Amino acid sequence: MKAYVAGVGMTRFEKPETREWQYWDMVREAGSAALADAGVAYTEVEQVPVGYCFQPSTAGQRAAYELGLTGIPVYNVNNNCATGATALMLARQLVEGGAADCVLALGFEKMKRGALGGGADGGDFSTSPVARHYGIMAARHGFEMTPPTAQIFGDAAREHMERYGTTEAQLAAVAAKNHRHSAHNPYAQFRDVYDVDDILAARMVHRPLTKLQCSPTSDGAAAAVVVSERFAAERALTGLVEIAGQAMTTDTEESFTSGSCVDVVGQPMSREAARQAYERAGLGIEDVDVVELHDCFSVNELLTYEALGMCPVGESGKLVESGATTYGGRWVVNPSGGLISKGHPLGATGLAQAAELVWQLRGEAGERQVPGARVGLAHNIGLGGAAVVTLLRAV
Amino acid sequence: MKAYVAGVGMTRFEKPETREWQYWDMVREAGSAALADAGVAYTEVEQVPVGYCFQPSTAGQRAAYELGLTGIPVYNVNNNCATGATALMLARQLVEGGAADCVLALGFEKMKRGALGGGADGGDFSTSPVARHYGIMAARHGFEMTPPTAQIFGDAAREHMERYGTTEAQLAAVAAKNHRHSAHNPYAQFRDVYDVDDILAARMVHRPLTKLQCSPTSDGAAAAVVVSERFAAERALTGLVEIAGQAMTTDTEESFTSGSCVDVVGQPMSREAARQAYERAGLGIEDVDVVELHDCFSVNELLTYEALGMCPVGESGKLVESGATTYGGRWVVNPSGGLISKGHPLGATGLAQAAELVWQLRGEAGERQVPGARVGLAHNIGLGGAAVVTLLRAV
Repeated sequence: MKAYVAGVGMTRFEKPETREWQYWDMVREAGSAALADAGVAYTEVEQVPVGYCFQPSTAGQRAAYELGLTGIPVYNVNNNCATGATALMLARQLVEGGAADCVLALGFEKMKRGALGGGADGGDFSTSPVARHYGIMAARHGFEMTPPTAQIFGDAAREHMERYGTTEAQLAAVAAKNHRHSAHNPYAQFRDVYDVDDILAARMVHRPLTKLQCSPTSDGAAAAVVVSERFAAERALTGLVEIAGQAMTTDTEESFTSGSCVDVVGQPMSREAARQAYERAGLGIEDVDVVELHDCFSVNELLTYEALGMCPVGESGKLVESGATTYGGRWVVNPSGGLISKGHPLGATGLAQAAELVWQLRGEAGERQVPGARVGLAHNIGLGGAAVVTLLRAV
Repeated sequence: MKAYVAGVGMTRFEKPETREWQYWDMVREAGSAALADAGVAYTEVEQVPVGYCFQPSTAGQRAAYELGLTGIPVYNVNNNCATGATALMLARQLVEGGAADCVLALGFEKMKRGALGGGADGGDFSTSPVARHYGIMAARHGFEMTPPTAQIFGDAAREHMERYGTTEAQLAAVAAKNHRHSAHNPYAQFRDVYDVDDILAARMVHRPLTKLQCSPTSDGAAAAVVVSERFAAERALTGLVEIAGQAMTTDTEESFTSGSCVDVVGQPMSREAARQAYERAGLGIEDVDVVELHDCFSVNELLTYEALGMCPVGESGKLVESGATTYGGRWVVNPSGGLISKGHPLGATGLAQAAELVWQLRGEAGERQVPGARVGLAHNIGLGGAAVVTLLRAV
């Protein structure tokens, strides 16, 4: 049975410790907004997958109980930076399979500053899955241990530059575009506009990535109500967006043996997730109007252009420079500002992407509206690892 | 479509730091055993839910990759002590809904000694979900903060004693039975036999619970291969056990407002999960032969007898004393030794219960065999909270 997103909601993403809130406060805010947007009461929700990385065990219950105490199944799920899309993936499968007609997917994070330095949950880094990816590259490049995530992606950027002639200015152009987009997003952590020179002049985190090319640590929550065709019809719900196709992939042998940093950061996972999602939806990148993709670092937006089929491998730097991925171009990529400027509370990100696309496909995105958007693509990836690609279609 | 357990496997449960192993070593051992038991190759597995509480984000990938690098979806799930059954619940729903024909549910834990003192993942206890349950009782009883889990259950035991005349000897009889059962279980952490006097004479942890009535901290993993009817038929798989009914519940208002410690530790969740599972399976407690239930503390076995309908409320102390729940009685409860004696690696427990029941229903349980067992019931619960009841039936 077809699954639809009936409602979405999110908090503004914030620098940690900006607001006095607990994680359950942010989930109450985002979850209530999604339910109101769908026109569904919490008492109608049958199951709740909740995504987060940093909070204690069963934090999903503590948060969902703010919305109601109806005794329904709650699943706490975690897939690092792809956690939000993982909750959405479970929600869709539960609805498509007939286990439930109305599922609320929640995602949130209350992060500590600099939290991404170690294991994503602050645990022992040496036995963390990311350490395995990192170890492969450390052995090759002899680089230092802190902060590993920026190093892994910085090395992937240098590899792309060496192989294909991608420039620092092209990498900076990704960040300049996404910061510019976020100026119109009231949910974004940052709304300042920077040009390519500003981006290049910012503090270097790991060459060639400057601070303005790296997603920040963030607090925030997002939510989506996923319903069956039958439920939507019975309730005469409006504003539906179809989940036309979706796929999750994890690492393959290639990730660990090719010796390429681009493979280690997951470009092959993204490519395969996109291929499967297109196939299930009967759609291709040519059908897509608007994209929310995982620009945890500027380089990952370029790698993802290639993985999604928006350009041949090696041409992504030129693609962003051409203006093809902003307003007036072939696609608008990250109209929300992306992870770089909207912020990146790990468990919320994948659901916030879905929220932005739902607003875009309904024509409700205000100053950020992509004219005539009918098909949206969300791409959420986590080292460790998992990649999820979701195709959403206006009804 | 009906879902079946086609194969199970587990490691021996061990005191932490007994074996030199990483969490992925134990998952390789348990997962390989389950696949071999099912006669299924990892390349045939389509999705992998993995349950654990203490390891870093995406530890499930790190562990599942030991079994193969096929790029399939991996979900890391957590529901505190009910984590293992949560992985099984997702596996069943994915198979029943047609999302996959072959799902491998994994669960593991590599614990630190005394790990259950704080938030289950060692995080900030004050914002943990368990703290909320604890806070309700702390306000009522003014008790101290360490170790909360034993205090919560100890207080529930005292409440039961005061209300119904349950005795310390009856609580100890639960532990004596489960320790005795474990003598025949090569997978159990403890295999020593104790009588009621030994149990009562052991160190007091939180009155009336002595150390021999409390589940230990443990390392270990367990796994189950869940397949569709179609997959089983095509592969001519043998040794199948049907998942006849299953339900998960979480807290309701009652948990927080009744003022009863018995409600705070989840007896109402268990009762409702059992009711739903019986209804879905078209079975009742009268049809059940063998039970693996969540005896994290001796008192919880008594509370669960009542929740499952094995006796009227208040009569559970007499039930265990009557011998009705051991070999020769109406049911055999915890033939494996239960959490108290087999051990309790949080993420593995729910799947280890399923493993024991599958062996029992196939007649493969050796010296622990419950004669003629046809229907088994597993009960896995976590503060925080979630309760899962699963009915398994021999094919």
